[in-house]
Amino acid sequence: MSNLILQCKRLKDAAKLLGIADTKKKNKALYYVAKQLRASRDIIIAENEKDVRNAREAGMKESLIDRLRLDENRIEDMIEGIETIIDLRDPIWNSNRVWTLENGLTISKMTVPMGVIGIIYESRPNVTIDAFALALKSGNCILLRGSSTSIHSNRALVNAVKEGLKASRLPEDVIGFIDDVDRSVVMEMLTLNEYIDLIIPRGGNELIQFVIKNATVPTIETGVGNCHVYIDESANLEKAIKIAENAKMQRPGVCNACETILVNEKVARDFLPLLYQSFDGKVEMRGCEKTRKVIPVNRAGEEDWFEEYLDYTVAIKVVEDIKEAIEHIDKYGTKHSEAIVTEQLEHANLFLRQVDAAAVYVNASTRFTDGGQFGFGAEMGISTQKIHARGPIGLEELVTVKYTIVGNGQIRE
Amino acid sequence: MSNLILQCKRLKDAAKLLGIADTKKKNKALYYVAKQLRASRDIIIAENEKDVRNAREAGMKESLIDRLRLDENRIEDMIEGIETIIDLRDPIWNSNRVWTLENGLTISKMTVPMGVIGIIYESRPNVTIDAFALALKSGNCILLRGSSTSIHSNRALVNAVKEGLKASRLPEDVIGFIDDVDRSVVMEMLTLNEYIDLIIPRGGNELIQFVIKNATVPTIETGVGNCHVYIDESANLEKAIKIAENAKMQRPGVCNACETILVNEKVARDFLPLLYQSFDGKVEMRGCEKTRKVIPVNRAGEEDWFEEYLDYTVAIKVVEDIKEAIEHIDKYGTKHSEAIVTEQLEHANLFLRQVDAAAVYVNASTRFTDGGQFGFGAEMGISTQKIHARGPIGLEELVTVKYTIVGNGQIRE
Repeated sequence: MSNLILQCKRLKDAAKLLGIADTKKKNKALYYVAKQLRASRDIIIAENEKDVRNAREAGMKESLIDRLRLDENRIEDMIEGIETIIDLRDPIWNSNRVWTLENGLTISKMTVPMGVIGIIYESRPNVTIDAFALALKSGNCILLRGSSTSIHSNRALVNAVKEGLKASRLPEDVIGFIDDVDRSVVMEMLTLNEYIDLIIPRGGNELIQFVIKNATVPTIETGVGNCHVYIDESANLEKAIKIAENAKMQRPGVCNACETILVNEKVARDFLPLLYQSFDGKVEMRGCEKTRKVIPVNRAGEEDWFEEYLDYTVAIKVVEDIKEAIEHIDKYGTKHSEAIVTEQLEHANLFLRQVDAAAVYVNASTRFTDGGQFGFGAEMGISTQKIHARGPIGLEELVTVKYTIVGNGQIRE
Repeated sequence: MSNLILQCKRLKDAAKLLGIADTKKKNKALYYVAKQLRASRDIIIAENEKDVRNAREAGMKESLIDRLRLDENRIEDMIEGIETIIDLRDPIWNSNRVWTLENGLTISKMTVPMGVIGIIYESRPNVTIDAFALALKSGNCILLRGSSTSIHSNRALVNAVKEGLKASRLPEDVIGFIDDVDRSVVMEMLTLNEYIDLIIPRGGNELIQFVIKNATVPTIETGVGNCHVYIDESANLEKAIKIAENAKMQRPGVCNACETILVNEKVARDFLPLLYQSFDGKVEMRGCEKTRKVIPVNRAGEEDWFEEYLDYTVAIKVVEDIKEAIEHIDKYGTKHSEAIVTEQLEHANLFLRQVDAAAVYVNASTRFTDGGQFGFGAEMGISTQKIHARGPIGLEELVTVKYTIVGNGQIRE
């Protein structure tokens, strides 16, 4: 029996206890973990420095090193996330559907934990704490598989969690950490249907596709965001500039950042020069022919409409009307986050109804698609698939259901 | 471009119209389809007879031929299913979660259709109509892949549906039927992530495992039911016999039938002789050593606890207490349907909380785990996995969500 299976068995046993633990017990455990994280801050930062040093020596890009780095503020953010999760309603053993059949059977659709959730993630060590805290509050054990680049940080974080759990009345085995950088362990994990109820890959597209292709354990696809902001003919251009700028520039390396701006041709002459002024020098702009008649930008080709730049680059297309904007999004979008800037109610409603994406915005930046921003305390990732969860994965997305049926001797005729 | 992809493109286009169709339009289409099914009854039965004849010539078991057969009553049942679905609440564009952030953004978690749902099913031709009707009401196009044994029946049913749709204002392409018995088409279907949002396999374990292993499209596992009835020390033995008999014998070939009866040792001497009397001659009983001390039955081995007989065979085990019963179910069960017969509230609640299964019963037969019985009109299958749906898959399980976020120029700081 492999080490991984042995570890999974311990998690599965712990899941039985955790699954029936009451809210108070779970919140207490989270409280002790938060406390321990604060107490272990210096060790965590010192261990994280090792990862940062190794990454730099291996030639990692500075933007990625930034994602890897932990400092006092970022540790405080994790702790705040835990505190929010403590305050959120326990998602377990709730029901929004109870009904009675003609034969007298009462059926309740109750929320229950999944059991053991696996997460395979890259780089950002805060995921270790976010995933643990969301899993614990929702009554699930978590099996963590971080990347080798953040191995020291993750170890230190997991140690702090285990230390914190000691003060609680929950078993340490509610958290499992795969401390083995060999990729074959991931492959094994993906087919342990007997022990793992759900696997969430969180990271680059390559990782996600690898998981989806090889997993027999159910998975939730996260990830790719080719997001659009559409400036409608009735847009307030001041809002439009603010939103376009924020969606593109506030943090271009993340999945909810904007990649293409669609501009209604009736406002193109007014809007594009303002956009040019706002972006100039900071963002590489690539436009369609109509765009290039108004502002002097590089040419955008068909491939640009598909591109998730994750960088200071943006594609711009002038469209005839809202219909063409929706069709463009439908063809090139990845169903992540899409925004319209408009003052016209009918167009707002049309966009909300017809655009098929996890998050659809009216007059707001796409950057809000985020568990923290939504008030979930943290997120396991952002689902871009349609089954089970879509958008930020928080507590309510980490449950399954159980029908409880209470009778008085009923049999089927 | 393959025929299947061409077909999927048409379904995907139809899904855009269907996804925003109002309830009245969808119900009307269902009404016309029901009407057409009644009008096409004789053709459907004649075509079904061809399948039955072929199956018999190929040496199919009578119990399976029974599942394949369509008669007036069974067609009437399908029509009744459609009528129930017409009466059910439209599951689309509802929300049970709307909240406003401090920054003034209002977030609504809305239910929306998935798009295109594929179903791969064996034998029973009523699935053709059940799947179509549930999909349509939930705003989804359906891609059907039935088995070669029911090809004539399925063709006739799909023709009736298409004929009925002509009278409605929905496109015929809301239903797609793969009229190709080659298995390679299934393989192609399983990886068409661009066109199909969800695939549900419904049939034998081999089919289900094949789909799970090979699909990159998200799937919902349905199926295997090793279900238990536990007779508690406080059970009313009259109810216990009625429930055990119904759970085992009313239709032993289906997944929610009981396979093992667990008997508390305090009532074994009273209960087992009654059970023996009730089952004798009709069910092969295989018991543990303690059982065999009370009634003269065959010996049950370790392998029997794992067995899904789907037949007139039952395993019987005497257990020390409810704890042992729950542990047995946990070890050998397939998390489908589990029942306790008890008059003790504490034991009822313990069983409901601690048994991990799609449906957990107190004082009722496991045979109720069924979309029709639950009041769903029909079912796409019974999910035995934990993500997305668990138990009978009805309208509410065929939706995904979309967050709509309405603001007034909000950007992320």
